[in-house]
This record gives sequence, C-alpha cells and structure tokens, in this order.
Amino acid sequence: MQAIAVEPGAGEPTLVEKPRPEPAPGEALVRTLRVGVDGTDHEVIAGNHGDLPAGADRLVLGHEAVGVVEDPNGTALEEGQHVVPTVRRPPNGTNEYFERGEPDMAPDGEYVERGIVGAHGFMAEYFTSPAEYLVPIPERLAPLGFLVEPISISEKAIEHAVASRSAFDWEPESALVLGNGSLGLLTLAMFESVLELDRTYCLGRRDRPDPSIDIIDELGSTYVDSRETPVSEISEVHEAVDIVYEATGYAKHAFETIDALAPNGVGVLLGVPEPWSFEIDGGRLHQEFVLHNKALVGSVNSHRGHFESAIDTLEGLPTWLTDDLVTGVYGLEEYQSAFETGDDVVKTAVEFASI
Amino acid sequence: MQAIAVEPGAGEPTLVEKPRPEPAPGEALVRTLRVGVDGTDHEVIAGNHGDLPAGADRLVLGHEAVGVVEDPNGTALEEGQHVVPTVRRPPNGTNEYFERGEPDMAPDGEYVERGIVGAHGFMAEYFTSPAEYLVPIPERLAPLGFLVEPISISEKAIEHAVASRSAFDWEPESALVLGNGSLGLLTLAMFESVLELDRTYCLGRRDRPDPSIDIIDELGSTYVDSRETPVSEISEVHEAVDIVYEATGYAKHAFETIDALAPNGVGVLLGVPEPWSFEIDGGRLHQEFVLHNKALVGSVNSHRGHFESAIDTLEGLPTWLTDDLVTGVYGLEEYQSAFETGDDVVKTAVEFASI
Repeated sequence: MQAIAVEPGAGEPTLVEKPRPEPAPGEALVRTLRVGVDGTDHEVIAGNHGDLPAGADRLVLGHEAVGVVEDPNGTALEEGQHVVPTVRRPPNGTNEYFERGEPDMAPDGEYVERGIVGAHGFMAEYFTSPAEYLVPIPERLAPLGFLVEPISISEKAIEHAVASRSAFDWEPESALVLGNGSLGLLTLAMFESVLELDRTYCLGRRDRPDPSIDIIDELGSTYVDSRETPVSEISEVHEAVDIVYEATGYAKHAFETIDALAPNGVGVLLGVPEPWSFEIDGGRLHQEFVLHNKALVGSVNSHRGHFESAIDTLEGLPTWLTDDLVTGVYGLEEYQSAFETGDDVVKTAVEFASI
Repeated sequence: MQAIAVEPGAGEPTLVEKPRPEPAPGEALVRTLRVGVDGTDHEVIAGNHGDLPAGADRLVLGHEAVGVVEDPNGTALEEGQHVVPTVRRPPNGTNEYFERGEPDMAPDGEYVERGIVGAHGFMAEYFTSPAEYLVPIPERLAPLGFLVEPISISEKAIEHAVASRSAFDWEPESALVLGNGSLGLLTLAMFESVLELDRTYCLGRRDRPDPSIDIIDELGSTYVDSRETPVSEISEVHEAVDIVYEATGYAKHAFETIDALAPNGVGVLLGVPEPWSFEIDGGRLHQEFVLHNKALVGSVNSHRGHFESAIDTLEGLPTWLTDDLVTGVYGLEEYQSAFETGDDVVKTAVEFASI
C-alpha cells in the first residue's frame, strides 16, 4: 500500500510503499478515507518537532484521520463502520493514564503520538489500531471526519479553561482567539455556536481579501490585525475578554494574554514555541494575576471523550463554514498540494479512498 | 473609644480617639477582642498599598479580627456571640458580586476593603457591620479567631487551584509553599493536615535557629533556603511538585513556579508585587505550560464560605502549631510591639479586650 512519509530534515514528505498492516488481537484494520494536514505536520516535516518510531528511518505522517472499518478482527466494531482514531498510544503495554482514559494527561515517556512522536501516523491506505482508540462517527459526517481531531483539541482546552473558573459563578460573554489558522477558526466557531458568547475576536496578520478573514466576518466575529493592534492593546482598543485562546505558538502572546483578560478571565495556551528569551513587566503581570483572579492554563492533546464531543460539535457547525474552511482535498496522485501553504489555503486533507 | 490608625506615608500607626460607632439597621455592634497584623498592614503603613475612606485623613487599620456581639440590634445574631468579620463591603448599596456571595471576585471599584482600601478597619474597641458579614465562631476558638481571615485566603486559593485541575483525575501528592511568613506556614499546615499531601516544602531565606524553620521541621515539611536552592532549581534538587503556593510577592517566583511544577500541576499566586521588568525564557515557559498541561491561578481575598471553612480548619490545627505561630499578643498599651518585625516574630495580634 502507499503511505506518505517524511525523513527527518528532508523538508518534504514522499510517497512510500509499505506492506498492508495486519491487525493484532484487539485491533481492527481500517481503510483510510481522509487525513487532514495541520501545523504540527509542517513542524514534523521541517524537523522541528516529533520523533521517529524505534528503528524506523522515516515517519508515516498524519494524525487527523477518518476511515472505515475493513476488518473488525473480532472487536466490537462492525465492518463498514466509519471511525476516527485518537492519537496517543501507550509506549509499552499500558499505564495509569491510558487505563483511566486520560492519555492526554500522560507525561513525557508515557505516550507515543501517531504521526508525530514515536509511532507511524495514518497517512497510509490502511492502518490498524486497538478498537478502543477508534471513535465511531456517523457516515454522513465522514467527509469532514478529519476535522474531529483538531476540534477535540479545543474541546479539551475549553473544558480545562471552564474548569479553572468553576469555583465561582462565571458567565463568559467574550472571547479572543489568537491565530486565524484552521484551529483558531474552528474554535472561534465553537465560541459562537457552542458557548454562545456574545462577542468574539480573532487575531491574525493578514490583509483583506483573505479567506480566513471572510470566515471571521461571516461568523459575526471581529478581526483584529496584530500589526495594528497588538495583543497587549486589545483590552483598550476593543475590550478585555473573558477567555483568550492562544493558537499562534508565539511566546509573547502567552504573557500578553494576561493583560487581554478581563477580571476573573482565563487564558488557555496551545502553541508550542521554541525557547526565546525576552523582557516582561513580571511585577505588573504577577499583580494582574492576583488582584483580578486571572488564570492561565496550558492544554495539549485530547482524549476519547473529547473526540466524542467533537463529533457533536462538528455536526452542529454550519455547512457554509466547513465549506469555506476546507480549501482543498487532494487525492494521493496530488498529495503534495495538501502540504502547500499560501494566502488562499485554510485547511487541506489528503484523500486515500473516495467516500 | 480608642483605635489604631495610620496617616498615609507617616510610616507608623498611632492611637486615636474616635466616637463609638452606632449600628445602622441590619448592622450589629461588635466589641473587638483581637486583631491580627499581617504583611498587608505593613504595606498600608508604608503607604505602598490601600486607600483612605472618602473624606478621611487617616485609616483605621486591621482586617483580621475577632469580636463579640455587644448589640445584635435586631439582627439574627445574639448578644455575647463570638464573630469574625469578612473584609470586603460594597461601596454603594450593593452589586451582583455581593448579592451572589462572591465579593472576592468583584473587580476594581465594586468593593472597599475594611482596614485596607476605602473603609476603616477593625483595630478599634468597637466596630459595626451588617450581620451578613459577621461569621459566628465557637467561643473556644475565639482567642485564635484573628487567624480565620488569613486561613480563609488560603481556603479560597486552594479551592481555585483544585478547581483548575477538576477536568481530570488529579491526586496531588506534593506541594511547595513559597514564603515562610505566617500565611505560608498556615498554608503548609493546611497542605499537611487538610489535603494530607505526602511531601511538602517551604521556601524561605532565613538561617537556623529560626522559629519559622522550627515550625516547618515540626510539620514534617522540608525547608528550602532560597539562597542555596532558587525556585527554578527545586525540581532538580528536590522534586517537581503538584502544587506551588506563592506567598512572597516576589515577581520572579510567579514565573519560576512554572518550572517547579510537575506535569499537570498548578501554581496559585497570592503576592502583590510592584511593577518590575526582567527577562524570562518565555518560549520555553510557554512550551512547559502547554506540553505538560500546567496552570497558574491568581487569587485574592475570600468570601463567607471560605471563612466558614477556615473556622473548621482552625479547629483541626494542632495546638503546638498555633502556640508556636502566634509569637505575641499585645494589649492596647503596648500596641506598637504588634507591629515590630524581626527574626523571632511570626504572627502577632493586638488585644482590645481580654477574652
């Protein structure tokens, strides 16, 4: 079968031929339908993130997949059932985090991530997985099933943000998303349609006309151009907000978030920047944290429950949004197009089998 | 009646004569028994924090009080009942934060604080208060009733810290308290006796023999001398901990806390430093937040529920601890001794009437 793999440092993925995998006991064989491409893939391709599986010389990419069960192999799944795989797996047997269904909270060394760290991904015509990591999705949603993983990331992030404010009566009315990539836009839509916030803002650094700004406008959200209004000035120019969702990976945003928050607000951080030293007014920021009961929460990965919520969320998203968000789905013969970036690209996927 | 007041910038409190207050409808008249002294009082005395009541030229100090109801004035309280007053009051009539019992979450302008910001404190022979802000305390605990307010601060801080970890299965085993003042020591005791953590650490910068280090030892906790082991090295020298409680007001500690935390840990900030710019490795700290699901939560003040929990906590503290912690209770004739600081001072109070 064909797979899309990357050699660390090679800078671009290639098509490779691999044997079709055989499911082990407890595993199902899945025929891959579509796999999304995101910023993490680009970091893995550039050699800035991720790790090869033991003994491998290249990594099969892909962690945002949807497929159809080809062989249930004695598991409770059914042939023909559509599924979305979760990403983390236990590295050796199992451990307490996986046993309690919280692999997303596992520390370093207690997990591998398919397509990212230490395990091959889903960008192949077939993949196998323990049935417990395959989340059923209605067939009608399968064409967009590659959006479930990124939405699940925000399901977790928002769950942790809201939990951090659960010791008091908190009714958020406003949110700011830092980053107008596909994850930022999906989250903006979630703030509008799931949390039903009154006012939302999305920060980017692009000029109109731009497909991501069009989506921001259409959602009824306010586009904030970071070149005109830096994060630290948003509270003055617009308003201090109840939630900040950081999806830029730009480290200064993590700390500027404290000023962008209204009293009792929470910032949730998702970016993974490189080391970078800079100066902050730490005394003032520390005081802001305390006197206004603010919180910052880091969030990575997601668990099966978040995938299940994400499927519900996906079902509730307006059709125009997913139509506009997915700017390209490319067959294997033109897989390279799915990895191209540019002003007209929002979200892409590779199609391994037609739906 | 006599009161202890401070003129902003005068640098030390003085005894003043004031008329005994008359309770308004809904208020009770309380005879003050004891009022504790803490770091906030010293900041108010130094002119670094706080604000005068409208039209006043000096501020009556004191926010950690215990008293006895002299005149219930038609409220549900009883004459002779021992009470601890909460600190925040609505500035004009009331507002939503007070109505829902969460004055601690009120933003600037929506509260005054007795003895600190915009309202006279409790360091007077009598004070009045709306009955709803007077929390009954058993008579046997009244001699230590001035510890209820500081304990309530930590009740809230710990509640918010735990809430921030409530979206997953979190069983903290270790905690680090930054600061070996009376609030730090009380919190250390709470971590030992209330949360029943296995391992606790307390950071200070004092040499043995020292009464606060004796208390740390006696609690079974580990003293960390910040001159030998800075906060950023604690995870290597000792261990990364599940909870960090910051009570130093030293701004670098807020950010070094991120490194002192174990994966999935939470740091709760209570200090109120002045503006101070310094360099941090913001990229690495941002990454730490995200990849290890860490959280930082600021916490200020406390509400009536926290005072009620604090009374339970106070009841459970060992006698040796409160004996060692309270290094001086001084009558009005020697009130100045209660404001002296030094290596042999941990916690002091002024006694306005014998118990």
